[in-house]
Amino acid sequence: MSAQAEDSLEQLRQRLAEFAAARDWDQFHSPKNLAMALVGEAGELVEHFQWLTEEQSRGLDGERLKAVGHELADILIYLIRLADKLDVDLVQAAAEKIAINESRYPRERVRGDARRAEEYD
Amino acid sequence: MSAQAEDSLEQLRQRLAEFAAARDWDQFHSPKNLAMALVGEAGELVEHFQWLTEEQSRGLDGERLKAVGHELADILIYLIRLADKLDVDLVQAAAEKIAINESRYPRERVRGDARRAEEYD
Amino acid sequence: MSAQAEDSLEQLRQRLAEFAAARDWDQFHSPKNLAMALVGEAGELVEHFQWLTEEQSRGLDGERLKAVGHELADILIYLIRLADKLDVDLVQAAAEKIAINESRYPRERVRGDARRAEEYD
Amino acid sequence: MSAQAEDSLEQLRQRLAEFAAARDWDQFHSPKNLAMALVGEAGELVEHFQWLTEEQSRGLDGERLKAVGHELADILIYLIRLADKLDVDLVQAAAEKIAINESRYPRERVRGDARRAEEYD
Repeated sequence: MSAQAEDSLEQLRQRLAEFAAARDWDQFHSPKNLAMALVGEAGELVEHFQWLTEEQSRGLDGERLKAVGHELADILIYLIRLADKLDVDLVQAAAEKIAINESRYPRERVRGDARRAEEYD
Repeated sequence: MSAQAEDSLEQLRQRLAEFAAARDWDQFHSPKNLAMALVGEAGELVEHFQWLTEEQSRGLDGERLKAVGHELADILIYLIRLADKLDVDLVQAAAEKIAINESRYPRERVRGDARRAEEYD
Repeated sequence: MSAQAEDSLEQLRQRLAEFAAARDWDQFHSPKNLAMALVGEAGELVEHFQWLTEEQSRGLDGERLKAVGHELADILIYLIRLADKLDVDLVQAAAEKIAINESRYPRERVRGDARRAEEYD
Repeated sequence: MSAQAEDSLEQLRQRLAEFAAARDWDQFHSPKNLAMALVGEAGELVEHFQWLTEEQSRGLDGERLKAVGHELADILIYLIRLADKLDVDLVQAAAEKIAINESRYPRERVRGDARRAEEYD
């Protein structure tokens, strides 16, 4: 088995494709619908944090942390499905985006400053 | 090098942790703030699809697909950062959630039907 | 002219209906699409606040406040359009929901406590 | 009573301010937190529509329509609260934004075309 085939994202992609196929759900999984499902899960994630202080958000108790972990999982699941349907390589896209961010936010210029890149121009 | 260390998600996690540390940005990366950043990116993703038909969303042209790929990358980046800050294992969480979904949505019961689990009860 | 006709929400509803009709945009304004547009704008709103402390979010400078005001306007615009397309009376729906909240969150029970209703059960 | 005081948005603003004050919840209602609550509700809204076709989204049954109406109410509630906390006049902001949209999207140029303004440049 190649290193690629053992990769966790690739394994999840395959398992999720089989999950949808076994339920005849590909008909519902248009990129438009999957993007909606993803933002819905992201909204559920935010609801866990909306009344917490930043400090509290760093120290979730076990039950809350479990629930938040499942929201993160839901987001990852739809992200993988959407990338699969669009034939986007998530890892390559992330590597490209990180390279862009490294040039947009040079470390010596933005150290300790979270303003967005456009605000520097 | 172990298989674990070669895993794409683990490699991205390390690279993103170094990116933040080099910019002294960990102070901004509370789980609360990262959840907000993630949903903001998910909102940008949805904006690409909101006026498209489902059919059009399946056939994005090259330029649009590139832009959408970068939105997916942004979401993955914040997802990995948030999981890292919460010490959640994304792959394990996703595996757990898929197992839950497999029991909530038995294939013979939900075949071709996208209604949510609670609607069956 | 009746009090109803002078109401600000009703006036905005009419103006937005005319705006869409003049551009032949009703074809794009399905409830599904308008819900996507609304969450996209909500994501833009959140982006203004994601790296601010709560305290900073209470003291936006004039330029930022102007931009945030326009995000709020965008959300209101899509909210009014969506309610119009679904034939939902926003004011009545809000009054109903506030009444529900008043019984779910009795003031003596939840005073100074932001936990959600289900957590009390 | 002036026309202003009878306005539905102004009445809701007052009622919601009293609701929060009676529960000592203003401490949680920073603009940052209210923006999170709003996007969380927008995510719940989208979840109602994610597996529906556009056509189905135009013909919700009574029970679903009631639930969607309450999501719209939740969004309006947080929108009014957030505008109140920021001292933004929602109606004026919406009027300004509609005027901007009228000049960005001249009717003769964009008739039947939903592309965003920047794509015309």
